[in-house]
Amino acid sequence: MNPSTSALLTDLYELMMAQAYLKQGMDEPALFEFFVRKLPEHRNFLIAAGLEQVLDYLSEWRFSREELTWLDQSGQFSSQLLDYLERLRFTGDVEAMPEGTIFFPQEPILRIVAPLPQAQLVESRVMNLLSFQTMVASKAARSVLVAGGRPLIDFGLRRAHGAEAGLFAARASYLAGFAGTATVLAGMAYQIPLYGTMAHSFVQAHEDETVAFEHFAEAQPDNVVLLIDSYDTEAAAGKVVSLARTLQARGITIKGVRLDSGDLADHARKVRRILNEGGLPHAQILASGNLDEYRVKALVESAAPIDSFAVGTAMTTSSDASSLDCAYKLQEYAGRPCRKRSEGKATWPGRKQVYRYLADDEHLSHDIVTTHNDQLPGEPLLDLVMKNGRRLAHSPGLSELRRHAAAQLGQLPSALQSLEPVPAYDVRISLALQSLAQTVDRRL
Amino acid sequence: MNPSTSALLTDLYELMMAQAYLKQGMDEPALFEFFVRKLPEHRNFLIAAGLEQVLDYLSEWRFSREELTWLDQSGQFSSQLLDYLERLRFTGDVEAMPEGTIFFPQEPILRIVAPLPQAQLVESRVMNLLSFQTMVASKAARSVLVAGGRPLIDFGLRRAHGAEAGLFAARASYLAGFAGTATVLAGMAYQIPLYGTMAHSFVQAHEDETVAFEHFAEAQPDNVVLLIDSYDTEAAAGKVVSLARTLQARGITIKGVRLDSGDLADHARKVRRILNEGGLPHAQILASGNLDEYRVKALVESAAPIDSFAVGTAMTTSSDASSLDCAYKLQEYAGRPCRKRSEGKATWPGRKQVYRYLADDEHLSHDIVTTHNDQLPGEPLLDLVMKNGRRLAHSPGLSELRRHAAAQLGQLPSALQSLEPVPAYDVRISLALQSLAQTVDRRL
Repeated sequence: MNPSTSALLTDLYELMMAQAYLKQGMDEPALFEFFVRKLPEHRNFLIAAGLEQVLDYLSEWRFSREELTWLDQSGQFSSQLLDYLERLRFTGDVEAMPEGTIFFPQEPILRIVAPLPQAQLVESRVMNLLSFQTMVASKAARSVLVAGGRPLIDFGLRRAHGAEAGLFAARASYLAGFAGTATVLAGMAYQIPLYGTMAHSFVQAHEDETVAFEHFAEAQPDNVVLLIDSYDTEAAAGKVVSLARTLQARGITIKGVRLDSGDLADHARKVRRILNEGGLPHAQILASGNLDEYRVKALVESAAPIDSFAVGTAMTTSSDASSLDCAYKLQEYAGRPCRKRSEGKATWPGRKQVYRYLADDEHLSHDIVTTHNDQLPGEPLLDLVMKNGRRLAHSPGLSELRRHAAAQLGQLPSALQSLEPVPAYDVRISLALQSLAQTVDRRL
Repeated sequence: MNPSTSALLTDLYELMMAQAYLKQGMDEPALFEFFVRKLPEHRNFLIAAGLEQVLDYLSEWRFSREELTWLDQSGQFSSQLLDYLERLRFTGDVEAMPEGTIFFPQEPILRIVAPLPQAQLVESRVMNLLSFQTMVASKAARSVLVAGGRPLIDFGLRRAHGAEAGLFAARASYLAGFAGTATVLAGMAYQIPLYGTMAHSFVQAHEDETVAFEHFAEAQPDNVVLLIDSYDTEAAAGKVVSLARTLQARGITIKGVRLDSGDLADHARKVRRILNEGGLPHAQILASGNLDEYRVKALVESAAPIDSFAVGTAMTTSSDASSLDCAYKLQEYAGRPCRKRSEGKATWPGRKQVYRYLADDEHLSHDIVTTHNDQLPGEPLLDLVMKNGRRLAHSPGLSELRRHAAAQLGQLPSALQSLEPVPAYDVRISLALQSLAQTVDRRL
């Protein structure tokens, strides 16, 4: 069983509603939009991510023979539904912001228009795919903004929420500007550069720390980064200096050391001095150990001689905001706009477009969310990417998306780059959209 | 590609270390233990979960042809490593606490003893599997403890961190005492009871709320739970009452309603009155919408007439503690105990056992962590479950594990049941273990 591709990775109510829609012949086009209701407390902006996986999912969406048999045997579903699911393919349209685009609350980043049962059935997984990568890319971008160009590496797999989270976090953080990941499968799946050093267990498995370093260097002569905090960090740095001479004679260069505990700035200064005085000015220092954007910022500001940072758990799990307040809402059915008016959860109806305006052609000034047919000057952010179930173009590729994300981050006004909350970015709801909402309210 | 079963779902350094171990002929038995260093701020205990998935993983651990080819083409790895990976099977032993067992920091819940390269290579995924389900089960148990017997249902898939997280959160929460889940694949994979109602989109796709309710009821006559907060909750409750008479004539009973927004206690009271006065005293009220254990407790204490709770995002993402400070550490190699002494991260060396003691044969009194050969009276918590790569028994099954978890929760002293932090449970490190640590320190 592969949960990543199973069509049964959905909520039961999606199947129940599909059954009711089919019984009533309700298969007119339904328009659902995915958006975030409000920013997490610690975010000033979000970065759209996960579209590629949504398009893969929709393209390959099938109920397998085994799944259909299980549904049938559960006795809960009509033969009409089961027949429908057996033949089911996604035949709808998708419009979306490109991955890497900065966006804000109330702005749809993805729209699906498809026969109602289809658009309903994909809800759970589409939300699951978009919300996770968007959350991680948005968190990772904060480290990128404060790292001052120093490379950041994803070390989060071990505490990610399962297999797919580990893999997708590597992708989302690379998209947001990380230099690479330790997760090997992300290298194979997405051609993301891989980074690796050694664990404390490697040192402990040897009786002698220097022997451990030597064994490691001999096995990976082109990629020697040594973990030096297993017992005494500065003593280990001294061992590295001594070993470097021996290795040099064999043509092996020590690329760097990793610090993983204690006062990282203080250790980095002492270790830098030991390495420099020992003739290893080019050996780099990588810092790891419960890092997040706040600690990266503090270390950068302290001018600690750290060359790169490994960021793991806090980024991969988005520890200060482990979910997005996101929604996938029906905004139009059979050509008729609709909206939800639940307390505190009302939505803007109809098919929408988002326009973005820059100040001095440089930094974000404001966005306008309006109805789709209210064409404004400026740059519309949502593009048609899938038509009648088929992609309109090849995937842009992760490198291109990464450049797009970097360009987008370059457009952030300095206030929004802050790690601390600042006044919200100006997202305007157009008069046309407000008027449509009133029309819908009067009808209901 | 199935990330859940790929052997490449590991950190690059595991492969690098394995290459170095093989080059040095270091394939003696290595003993790694998985434990939690300290409790998250908001937890008083943890519940072990995920062992079944670890044993599945170890049993099926293979590098595929495609993965081996990719590793080879990367040019980073020795032919010795590639040959080794091609033939690789897990041949080690596993000892573990049964899933559903309550445990505390410094207590190993899983031990792997295997040739060093094997025990090293599985590190990333073993941690990933154990830490996620343990975290979710531990969070879910808190809702179970305050719900006063009312059924709890997992609604978290859409904001879970990817596919596997959604699936495993359903399993872990059911293990901890939830009544079921909305995630269909968890029904198929683990026979977990499924629950489902309807979404706001179903109501919105109809021009008339009553017609929506009627269509839903006709399509699912045995499972009619209606979502009544799309526009006006109490007005919708009135529509439910009127509709109930029509449906009754057709032999359809309305099982209940769902509230998803606003002041849930206030709405529940008003709706309960409307349903009772309308002749529907048996119709149940399900509450959902950003619930967590704190809100469930408040609603239960308010005596709001809510019959069951759907808990989603907060539980599935363990929002107040999105990771565990856990470790998988080498404690012995080739019969020689070892320990890590990094600042703030020192570990207890050697092969260990945990003994548990009850007060008055009823509630937890204290635990003792000691060396494996220091046999104490009382109940040892770790059992041998895999020998030479083979399971010693069939999986106990989720129902049995769920009963074990319930019995364990029944042994919690009332202080530890609190949602607020209380003084830590008494976990004692035996003199034998302290003495071993000193011996190791003297050696190093």
